Amino acid sequence: MRILKPLVVGLAIVAVAAGVTIAQTQPDQLRQTAQALFAPLPEVADNPDNPVTRPKVTLGKMLFYDPRLSLSGFVSCNSCHNLATYGVDNLPTSIGHRWAVGPRNSPTVLNAALHTVQFWDGRAKDLEEQAQGPIVNPIEMAIPNQAFAVERVASMPEYVRRFASAFPGEAQPLNYVNIAKALAAFQRTLMTPDRFDSWLRGNDAALSARELAGLQTFIAQGCASCHGGPALGGNNMAKFGVVESYWEATRDVVGIGGPTMPIDVGRFAVTHNEADLYIFKSPSLRNITRTYPYFHDGGVWSLRDATQIMARVQFGRDLSSEDLDNLMAFYQALEGRIPPYALALPILPPSTQQTPRPSNR
Amino acid sequence: MRILKPLVVGLAIVAVAAGVTIAQTQPDQLRQTAQALFAPLPEVADNPDNPVTRPKVTLGKMLFYDPRLSLSGFVSCNSCHNLATYGVDNLPTSIGHRWAVGPRNSPTVLNAALHTVQFWDGRAKDLEEQAQGPIVNPIEMAIPNQAFAVERVASMPEYVRRFASAFPGEAQPLNYVNIAKALAAFQRTLMTPDRFDSWLRGNDAALSARELAGLQTFIAQGCASCHGGPALGGNNMAKFGVVESYWEATRDVVGIGGPTMPIDVGRFAVTHNEADLYIFKSPSLRNITRTYPYFHDGGVWSLRDATQIMARVQFGRDLSSEDLDNLMAFYQALEGRIPPYALALPILPPSTQQTPRPSNR
Repeated sequence: MRILKPLVVGLAIVAVAAGVTIAQTQPDQLRQTAQALFAPLPEVADNPDNPVTRPKVTLGKMLFYDPRLSLSGFVSCNSCHNLATYGVDNLPTSIGHRWAVGPRNSPTVLNAALHTVQFWDGRAKDLEEQAQGPIVNPIEMAIPNQAFAVERVASMPEYVRRFASAFPGEAQPLNYVNIAKALAAFQRTLMTPDRFDSWLRGNDAALSARELAGLQTFIAQGCASCHGGPALGGNNMAKFGVVESYWEATRDVVGIGGPTMPIDVGRFAVTHNEADLYIFKSPSLRNITRTYPYFHDGGVWSLRDATQIMARVQFGRDLSSEDLDNLMAFYQALEGRIPPYALALPILPPSTQQTPRPSNR
Repeated sequence: MRILKPLVVGLAIVAVAAGVTIAQTQPDQLRQTAQALFAPLPEVADNPDNPVTRPKVTLGKMLFYDPRLSLSGFVSCNSCHNLATYGVDNLPTSIGHRWAVGPRNSPTVLNAALHTVQFWDGRAKDLEEQAQGPIVNPIEMAIPNQAFAVERVASMPEYVRRFASAFPGEAQPLNYVNIAKALAAFQRTLMTPDRFDSWLRGNDAALSARELAGLQTFIAQGCASCHGGPALGGNNMAKFGVVESYWEATRDVVGIGGPTMPIDVGRFAVTHNEADLYIFKSPSLRNITRTYPYFHDGGVWSLRDATQIMARVQFGRDLSSEDLDNLMAFYQALEGRIPPYALALPILPPSTQQTPRPSNR
């Protein structure tokens, strides 16, 4: 969790003094600053403890799309992290087993491998740990227990072969931890390079003047202090509502919310430490135009409103209409390209007479 | 609805007399018979009233994968007709809005354009009519009415453009009938050519001796009288349970069922004509190894059991173990290739502030 405050504040002064023209007249200086705050996406976000290999990724992709990882046979990872809609379901909070409605908004799987912690409350350290959760969560995929998940998968000879080849040399390659490792390896390839990356790498033509002005505003306003790094977020936990509360800001900006709005205590629910009250992971802003609705509760549909709410709750100020216009332009540059191979639905292995049957109960 | 009885009976006599060896010694004669009963799949099943064009198919594919065709934003056509699992959900009966469980098994969309009627009870004449049903069915996608569906889709500029280009010259290209037409056009391309096609066209090496023996058995037993034509079915309606009832046969073959089993009246529910009692569409047997569980209620998981049940209910006889072995081999040859372009998830257009929001109620 890098703290970049001094740099941001210094630049903010320059930006306020010189305005948008900086972006046009001193692009090299802006790029230098941006390179210090952000980074281009890697091709793959590898993990030495779970190396990304082709057999593992191919297997992980099959599991990602396989609804038999849910008790009902109806819910796959892709149900809530739909790659056709940038790795989210575009719902406030997700629907799971028996139409249970979850408490928090499903974050995108795109670029998620770059996050330094997983889940909104940071309760998993990486994707390998995270992927173990939803399969056995009773309101998500609702597999009764880890052994049941392994039994389902192991009932299909093609999966047995693929686990052996994805985890060579292991005595029991098909186990629950490896199911999660394969899913994580697939997600480690879900990087979505965009025009901002191209610009960071030196291509001046990749961003328009207004998009550069938006980047300038983004930095000047201090957004990068939480939304920095290669994913523009995902690498720190922060208090949500430093100056103003979420319910006050949404009431004023969107006209919803107010004191009766349910309050999510954030990381406190995990640690029961008062210092963790309202602490959430700062989400990545890559593909943010596509991952609506916004915030941990998916309570806000407009990205412009969400941006204004953030300025109020974190900094205690309102952004001008021009600042918002510029930021909205910059966000467009963060719409990336999903690897085409990831969008190609795999043909899933057939169930056998040994495969535990789906249950919608 | 061609009635092929004389031919089938004639061949059955030959087959019973000469046994499996016919398949090996007189392949040309078998092919000639097969060519009379079946036909290779076309590349596309076009409809002069809804011509298959590239813009329409591209649009139809997007709609097919778009969960916003459901009120909840959670259920797409692909949820129950999953192309990763050969166009079905592999559930006895499907799950829909608010976890409603439907009354009948979801048939595959693969090769469905070749069916002469749609739905198990034949209540739609073609895919263009069929596709209008599930979107507004309260237990499936649950869109409140056709106007709501049109409003959802029309709120996204990319869809508006694509409808204009898919239905050129129409004053109001984006309407409910055209949503269904686009979905149908996409499905009209979902042909899955397989080894049986290759053999029908003259490639002797495409089928093994056992598969040919299975084809021989299939014809000799009279299966082709209902499962003929290019889709091996889908082109006629027939009484299910001519000799023995479904519940008696499943009780004896699988050990489930019995007199308390719920009885589906079939087409009678549509026409209220007593002659239509227990009349169902004969399903296509293309990809039958993958479209389990079987029958209108998805009540039987094993294809071998389902085949034995069919022999009992329709012909009043038990198939020998060897006949079943051969038929199971023949079915393998009906596993086809799904067009790869259809498996490539489209990136869906973003919702706008005008898009009616999803509701999980």
